[in-house]
Amino acid sequence: MSVPATSSNPPAGTPFFRSRWVEVPDSVVGVADRGLPKGFRAAGVAAGIKPSGGTDVALLVCDAPDAVSAARFTRSGTAAPPVLVTKDESRLDALRAVVITSGNANAGTGRDGFTTARQVRAAAAEAAGVGEDEVAVCATGVIGVPLPMDVVPQGVAAAGTALREDGDEDFRRGIETTDLFPKTATLTVALDGGEVTLHAVCKGAGMIQPSFATMLCFVTTDARLSAETADLLLGVCVKRSFDRISVDGQLSTSDTAVLIASGASGIAVEPGTPDEQRFGLALDALLRQLALLITADGEGARRVGRVTVRGSDGPACERVARQVANSPLVKTALYGGDPNWGRIVQAVGAVLPGPALNPVGVRIAGVEVCRDGQEVVFDRPALEALVRDVEVEYDITLGAAVGEDGGVPDFANETEVYFSDLGHEYVTLNAEYTT
Amino acid sequence: MSVPATSSNPPAGTPFFRSRWVEVPDSVVGVADRGLPKGFRAAGVAAGIKPSGGTDVALLVCDAPDAVSAARFTRSGTAAPPVLVTKDESRLDALRAVVITSGNANAGTGRDGFTTARQVRAAAAEAAGVGEDEVAVCATGVIGVPLPMDVVPQGVAAAGTALREDGDEDFRRGIETTDLFPKTATLTVALDGGEVTLHAVCKGAGMIQPSFATMLCFVTTDARLSAETADLLLGVCVKRSFDRISVDGQLSTSDTAVLIASGASGIAVEPGTPDEQRFGLALDALLRQLALLITADGEGARRVGRVTVRGSDGPACERVARQVANSPLVKTALYGGDPNWGRIVQAVGAVLPGPALNPVGVRIAGVEVCRDGQEVVFDRPALEALVRDVEVEYDITLGAAVGEDGGVPDFANETEVYFSDLGHEYVTLNAEYTT
Repeated sequence: MSVPATSSNPPAGTPFFRSRWVEVPDSVVGVADRGLPKGFRAAGVAAGIKPSGGTDVALLVCDAPDAVSAARFTRSGTAAPPVLVTKDESRLDALRAVVITSGNANAGTGRDGFTTARQVRAAAAEAAGVGEDEVAVCATGVIGVPLPMDVVPQGVAAAGTALREDGDEDFRRGIETTDLFPKTATLTVALDGGEVTLHAVCKGAGMIQPSFATMLCFVTTDARLSAETADLLLGVCVKRSFDRISVDGQLSTSDTAVLIASGASGIAVEPGTPDEQRFGLALDALLRQLALLITADGEGARRVGRVTVRGSDGPACERVARQVANSPLVKTALYGGDPNWGRIVQAVGAVLPGPALNPVGVRIAGVEVCRDGQEVVFDRPALEALVRDVEVEYDITLGAAVGEDGGVPDFANETEVYFSDLGHEYVTLNAEYTT
Repeated sequence: MSVPATSSNPPAGTPFFRSRWVEVPDSVVGVADRGLPKGFRAAGVAAGIKPSGGTDVALLVCDAPDAVSAARFTRSGTAAPPVLVTKDESRLDALRAVVITSGNANAGTGRDGFTTARQVRAAAAEAAGVGEDEVAVCATGVIGVPLPMDVVPQGVAAAGTALREDGDEDFRRGIETTDLFPKTATLTVALDGGEVTLHAVCKGAGMIQPSFATMLCFVTTDARLSAETADLLLGVCVKRSFDRISVDGQLSTSDTAVLIASGASGIAVEPGTPDEQRFGLALDALLRQLALLITADGEGARRVGRVTVRGSDGPACERVARQVANSPLVKTALYGGDPNWGRIVQAVGAVLPGPALNPVGVRIAGVEVCRDGQEVVFDRPALEALVRDVEVEYDITLGAAVGEDGGVPDFANETEVYFSDLGHEYVTLNAEYTT
């Protein structure tokens, strides 16, 4: 698929950790733009699913028989057959292979979709030399079209033949669809026992919404983890990354995140140790930056916003953050570089009980524009320059700027959501292409 | 504001009742494109709020001292001061005047906004010769900017001087902002005692969402209604019209609907009579067509969709209908004339519990495309022609096409939402203009 380039397409040499909203812990002593950890091989081949002839079958294999894993899936009520087959029929704590078809989501395909998902999983097990229940099967692309089983099994077999320790680039291409730039990195993480490698690759551009919001993410490491630790760390880090972003408020049928630890470094990450914290912080930074890259590569995105909401009522903060992040009026203003705080107040009001006067406070790019529901004097030209940055912050407070007793207000709860803007390229992509 | 014309701009001579989704009852014996009922005068003047110099203060007055009224308001938690002043400080069952400023919503204006809303109401009371608590005050336009009180009171006084029985055209212009075409009609309704006149005018283009979704609507009639009947009929008809539409899923701070009955015809509409039904059906048809015109004039809209959801679980039907109507993926597909049912299944799944296989059924423009979650064979070129119509129907069923016992499935609940598409003009309007 040919898509227009946008300003979000980063120039060569852009560092992986590029967002001001990601703190890179000291335990990360190296950042490379590619490279699999020890114990893994990967491949990507063109099987003929994508009309473009691009790479569309990807295979990742862990050669360690005692690999441990963890996984998270979309909560969609119309989840795709590959998601349901993996979730219900594979050993999520002992996955050793992942197979992905791209260009076709094998979603909205009913009973036949289950049959083909199982066939793809079986083909991958054979190609990888592992058990069928050690394979996660994923698919991304158009919904409602049967997977072309005249070409997919041969593609999976070819991927098995092509598996290489440096196959991560081919693998990445094999999972991408409308992505404009790669979303992957390889970290070196310093632990007490030595250095381990942590690699993640993900894809995702449209159909991204904040309730577990990645299409696909695959994390590999040569650290030795218990299944419980893998599950805990993946769960926490997904909640703080993919679960906090929104491109278009849409929930994919196919979201899948998998972490596999080969243990090939011989270095264990034990629960409750400083090493667990070091490894966890590195994973957290990695997934947060990847989530922000997905947001920045949201279909047609020009800018990324962060909305932070503070107040006494936690669920209200959450509702407001989601509503602002998904408001087409806020998103078009972000696209237009317009510090339009009235639209933010509108979005806040939509999910608060009313009518009554809500003393809302709004800061944009650090500049206070609204206090207690009323505009405050600010330097508009200066703010207009600030909101043309690639990352724009919106800080919202729910409640009076001064507490009822004249003291500090109660802003005990805080939540944040990252979101992309809404521009012409989103409309073009989604009106003129069937995706 | 200069906005691009779209194909939704109807050619001259287009009949008012133009949607296939509105049934016009036999009691409607005349449809005119303008004209106030007996007992009303109206005016619109240019006070200097709109930078364009357009008409921006509108005044409507009922000369009958015993007029009865009813009103409905936005449920926004950041409702504008005019909404709160009217709701809390005016006699909603005995309104005799409505004053509207357009080009400035007097929203996000805090305590000062209450002061100016009360001042506008007082000026209108004096101009109309009625009590302050008999005035509804409304405002629509940009949020967060103080109302220019150096020009508004004089504008209201000038509108008072300009009041005329045929002032409805000026009034309409005075309430519009980004509207591309008028949304008004005057019906003649035949009752047992004779004919009564029913007039309504509304405005609204952006910031329209399905939970009570008009910006402003004013209904007048010379029928004699009790306050209870006025409230009942307005409430029911608003629920079936403005409450069922969505342009962009956004909740305005300013939504207001007012019905005033002058009784000047001398013909009473008594509760529980066939006349109440006749009058109610006419009001229903009028407001439903107006709601559809608002949707068709959604900022940049090219087409209007109707999503109808049937299933055994009423709240689930409602959630699904809203989710589909507000999905940017569904809306861009509607804009592009793409019968993309996969995106509909995606939206359905986002608000259903999962993951599990949901046997969803989808028909587009009457053509079955998905049964039990799986595509069925259909004539795609023929369907592609159908979805390029100005009105496109989406019928969704939640549950298996055949009931568990092999019999009729349980589709006891049904709900519908009307929505506009999402196109380049929406982005242009909302990214390049501060509205």
